[in-house]
Amino acid sequence: MRQTLADWLDKPIVRNAILGVILFNAILLGLETSERAMAQAGPLIRALDLACLTIFVAEIAAKLVAHRLRFFRSGWNIFDFLIVGISLVPGAQTLSVLRALRILRLLRVISVAPRLRRVVEGFITALPGMASVFLLMALIFYIGAVMATKLFGTSFPDWFGTLGQSAYSLFQIMTLESWSMGIVRPVMETYPYAWAFFVPFIMVTTFAVVNLLVGLIVNSMQDAHNVEEAEATETYRDEVLKRLEAIERRLDRQDR
Amino acid sequence: MRQTLADWLDKPIVRNAILGVILFNAILLGLETSERAMAQAGPLIRALDLACLTIFVAEIAAKLVAHRLRFFRSGWNIFDFLIVGISLVPGAQTLSVLRALRILRLLRVISVAPRLRRVVEGFITALPGMASVFLLMALIFYIGAVMATKLFGTSFPDWFGTLGQSAYSLFQIMTLESWSMGIVRPVMETYPYAWAFFVPFIMVTTFAVVNLLVGLIVNSMQDAHNVEEAEATETYRDEVLKRLEAIERRLDRQDR
Amino acid sequence: MRQTLADWLDKPIVRNAILGVILFNAILLGLETSERAMAQAGPLIRALDLACLTIFVAEIAAKLVAHRLRFFRSGWNIFDFLIVGISLVPGAQTLSVLRALRILRLLRVISVAPRLRRVVEGFITALPGMASVFLLMALIFYIGAVMATKLFGTSFPDWFGTLGQSAYSLFQIMTLESWSMGIVRPVMETYPYAWAFFVPFIMVTTFAVVNLLVGLIVNSMQDAHNVEEAEATETYRDEVLKRLEAIERRLDRQDR
Amino acid sequence: MRQTLADWLDKPIVRNAILGVILFNAILLGLETSERAMAQAGPLIRALDLACLTIFVAEIAAKLVAHRLRFFRSGWNIFDFLIVGISLVPGAQTLSVLRALRILRLLRVISVAPRLRRVVEGFITALPGMASVFLLMALIFYIGAVMATKLFGTSFPDWFGTLGQSAYSLFQIMTLESWSMGIVRPVMETYPYAWAFFVPFIMVTTFAVVNLLVGLIVNSMQDAHNVEEAEATETYRDEVLKRLEAIERRLDRQDR
Repeated sequence: MRQTLADWLDKPIVRNAILGVILFNAILLGLETSERAMAQAGPLIRALDLACLTIFVAEIAAKLVAHRLRFFRSGWNIFDFLIVGISLVPGAQTLSVLRALRILRLLRVISVAPRLRRVVEGFITALPGMASVFLLMALIFYIGAVMATKLFGTSFPDWFGTLGQSAYSLFQIMTLESWSMGIVRPVMETYPYAWAFFVPFIMVTTFAVVNLLVGLIVNSMQDAHNVEEAEATETYRDEVLKRLEAIERRLDRQDR
Repeated sequence: MRQTLADWLDKPIVRNAILGVILFNAILLGLETSERAMAQAGPLIRALDLACLTIFVAEIAAKLVAHRLRFFRSGWNIFDFLIVGISLVPGAQTLSVLRALRILRLLRVISVAPRLRRVVEGFITALPGMASVFLLMALIFYIGAVMATKLFGTSFPDWFGTLGQSAYSLFQIMTLESWSMGIVRPVMETYPYAWAFFVPFIMVTTFAVVNLLVGLIVNSMQDAHNVEEAEATETYRDEVLKRLEAIERRLDRQDR
Repeated sequence: MRQTLADWLDKPIVRNAILGVILFNAILLGLETSERAMAQAGPLIRALDLACLTIFVAEIAAKLVAHRLRFFRSGWNIFDFLIVGISLVPGAQTLSVLRALRILRLLRVISVAPRLRRVVEGFITALPGMASVFLLMALIFYIGAVMATKLFGTSFPDWFGTLGQSAYSLFQIMTLESWSMGIVRPVMETYPYAWAFFVPFIMVTTFAVVNLLVGLIVNSMQDAHNVEEAEATETYRDEVLKRLEAIERRLDRQDR
Repeated sequence: MRQTLADWLDKPIVRNAILGVILFNAILLGLETSERAMAQAGPLIRALDLACLTIFVAEIAAKLVAHRLRFFRSGWNIFDFLIVGISLVPGAQTLSVLRALRILRLLRVISVAPRLRRVVEGFITALPGMASVFLLMALIFYIGAVMATKLFGTSFPDWFGTLGQSAYSLFQIMTLESWSMGIVRPVMETYPYAWAFFVPFIMVTTFAVVNLLVGLIVNSMQDAHNVEEAEATETYRDEVLKRLEAIERRLDRQDR
C-alpha cells in the first residue's frame, strides 16, 4: 500500500496539482499585501491560505508515510519540510516576521519543476569549487572589519562602531555603493590617509570577486566541453587504435 | 505581377532608399525636440515627417499586396507593421506618448540592415537558454517583493508600500544603486535587522545574474567553436577511418 | 645618408633616450600642477619643458627627413605627429585647454614601448568585431534620447531638456549611477509610469553591454586557441594522412 | 639536530597547532574591538594576545634556527616574518595604526593552509600577464590626473586640487560611484564641456578593465585546458604515430 501511495504522489497529475496549489497560494499571499483586497475579501483569502497550507501538510504527511525515514535522504524533501514547517510554528499566524516567511512556500516551485531544480542544483554544485575564494574573502572581511573598527570606530561610530557595523559598511564599499562620496570622503576629512586603507580594500575584494567569476566560467566551460565532444573523441580514438592493432595482427600473421 | 512587385521591393536600390528614408525620418524626429528648429521650420518638419510616414505605409501596403498573408510569417515584417501602425492609431499625432513612440521607427533600420538583424537575432536566440534563470529571478523578485511589503511596507510606504513599489525598489537594490545609503541604512534605523533580508537578496540576485552571464559565455563559445573546427575534425576523422578500412580490406584480399 | 639617419633613429639607445625624455617631460608636466614647485622653480620647469618639446620636434623632423612621405604610412607615426603638433599650434602655450593637452605627449610611451603598443593594437583590432553592437547601442541611445526629451523634457529641462542632455543622462543611467534615487524616482513623482521607459532601457543596454563582453571573450579565446594548438593538430594530421597514404601505396606495389 | 627541528615544525600536528593559535589570536583581536569585552576581561585578552605573539616569535625563531638563511628563500616565510615583525616594532603596542595592523597576523592562515596558499599563488601568477594593461592604466591615470588638475583644479580644489586628489577622484569615477550626480554634473555647471573629458575617460578605463578581465579568463581557460586534455591527446598521438611507423617497417621487411 505504501508503494501505491508513493506511485500516486509521483504521478504527473498530482505533481501538477501541487504546483497549481503553490502558485495559487503565492497569488493569495500577494493579495494579502493589498489593503483593498484585504478589506473586501480578507476572511476568504485567509481561509483559502489555510486550505493551501492544509494541502501542503497533507502532501508531506503522505510522503512521510510512503517513504518513511528515506524521505529525509533527499535534500529537496528536507527543503519542503522546513518551508512548510515554518507555518506550523506556534505564533506563525501572528508574528509579522514568521507571517512574511510564508511566501517562501513559493520556493517549492523549484523542488517541483525539474528544470528549475537543475538550475539550482547547478548553482549549488558550483559552490564547493569556490570555497577557497569564499574563505579568503571571509578572512579579508574579518581583517578589514577589525582594522576599520580600531582605526575609524571612535570617530565614525555609525559606520565602524562595532565589528558588525564595519563588516556591513565594508560590504557596501565592496559593492561600490556610495563608497567615496558617502563614506571615504567624509572619513578622509578626519583621517586624510584613510584612502590607503579603502582603495586597496576595494582593489583586493574586486580582484577576488573577478577571480570567482573567472573560476565559474572556466568550470562551466569545461563541464559543457567534456559532455559531448570528449565522448566522440574517445570513441574515435578507440576505433583508430583498434583498427591499427588489427592491421598489425594481420601483418603478423602474414609474416608467419 | 505580384512576383514582379516582390522582386522590385527586394532590389538593393529600393532597400537602400527605404533605409535612407528611415534615417532621414530619424533626423526629422530629432529636430522636433529642438525648440529653435520647430520655431523656424516647424510646418516643414511636420510635412516631411508625414511624407516619410506615407512612404512607410506605401511600402508595407506593397509588401502586403506582394506576399499577402505570407507577409505575417516573418517576425521582422510583423515588427515593421506594428511600428508603422502605431503612427496610424487615432490620436497618434496629438497624444504625447504616442507621438514619442514614433521614433521607434528608427528600429526599422535593424530589420533592413542584415548585419544588425543578425546581432539582434543572436540576442533573441540566446534568450530561451536563459529562460530557467529568468524564471528563477522572477520567483526571487516576487518572494522578495511580498516579504519587503509585509515587513517594511507600513513604515516605508514610498519604497515598499505596494507589491509594485517593492519590486521597483528591489530592482534598484539589485543594480546596487544607492542600496545602502539610500535604502537599507534608513530602513535599518527602524528595523535593525533589515540587513538580514537585503544582504542575502543582493548576494542571491547577483549570483543569479553572474550565472546568466556565465551561461551566455559558455553558449556562444560552443557555438563559435563548433562551426569551423568541428567540421574540419569531422572530415579528418572520416578520412582516417576510411583509409584504415581500405588498408584492412586490401590485407584481407592478400590473405585470400 | 637618409638610410643612415633611419638606422640611427631605430637604434635601441636612441629609442631609450627618447623614452627617457618622454618620461622626464611627464614628470615636468606633473610638477607644473604643483603651486609650490612652480613658485620655487617655475622658469626652470618651463625651460626644461621647452627643451623636451624641441627634442620631440627634432626627432619627428629627422624621421620625416629619413622616411619622407612613407612616415605617414604608419598609424603610430601620425599619432606622434599629432600629439607633438598640438603643442606647436599658435596659442598652445597660453590657452589652458591646449596647455592641458600637452600631457598627451606621455601617450608617446605607447608608440615607443613595443609591449604597450601590442596591447593597444589588440584593443583596436577588437573594435571592428564589435561595430554592429556599437551601432545598435547608438540606435538605442538616439531613440532613447528623442523619447526622453519629448516625454520628460518640459518638466525636467536640466536632465532631458535637449537631445544632448538626454543622451548624457541616459549614459549616466546606463552606468547605473544614481539612476533611481537621483533621476527616476524624482521623474516618477511627475510621471508615475516613467519606470516603464527607464527599466527596459537599463535592461536592454545592460544586455547589449554584456553581449559586447561575451563577444570579446569568445574572440580572444579563439585567437589564443588557434595560435599554438591548431598548428600542432595540423602538423599531426598531415603526418597521419601522409603515412596512411604511404602504407596504401606500398600495399598497391605488393599487389602488383 | 637542525633537521629534527625542521621535521618537527613540518609535522601536521605542529602546523595545526599554529593554525589554532592564529585563529584564537584573531578572535582575541576581534574581542578587543568590543568595549564590553575589554571592560570585563581587558587584561586577560591582552595577556593572551601577548602569549600568542610569543608563540609566533618562537615559531619563527625555531624556523630560522632550523633553516638558517634558506628561511628567506621562500616568499611565504618572508611574509610571516614581516607580519609578526610589525608587532615587535617599538611603539607597536601603543600607536593605534600599528596596533590595528596586528590583525594582519590572521593572513598567516594563508601561508599555513595549503588550499588558500594555492589560490593566492594563482592570483599572483596571474599578475605578470596583466602587467602591460596595468602600466597602460597607470599612464591613463597619470595623464587624466594632470589634465583634470590643470583644467578643473582652480574651481574644484577639493576634488582636483592636487595630482593626488585628482587621481583619487578619477579612481572614484572609474568605479562609477557618484561620477555624474556627485562630480561631473557640478563640474559641468562651471565647465559645460567637462563631459568631453569624463565620458571618454570612463569609456577608456572601463574598456581597459574589461580587457583585463578577458585576459584573465582566456589565461585560466588555457591553463585548465592544457593540464589534462593536452596530455591525453599527446599520449594518443604518439601511440598512433608509433603504430603507423611499425606497420610501415613491417611492410618494408615484407618487400625485402
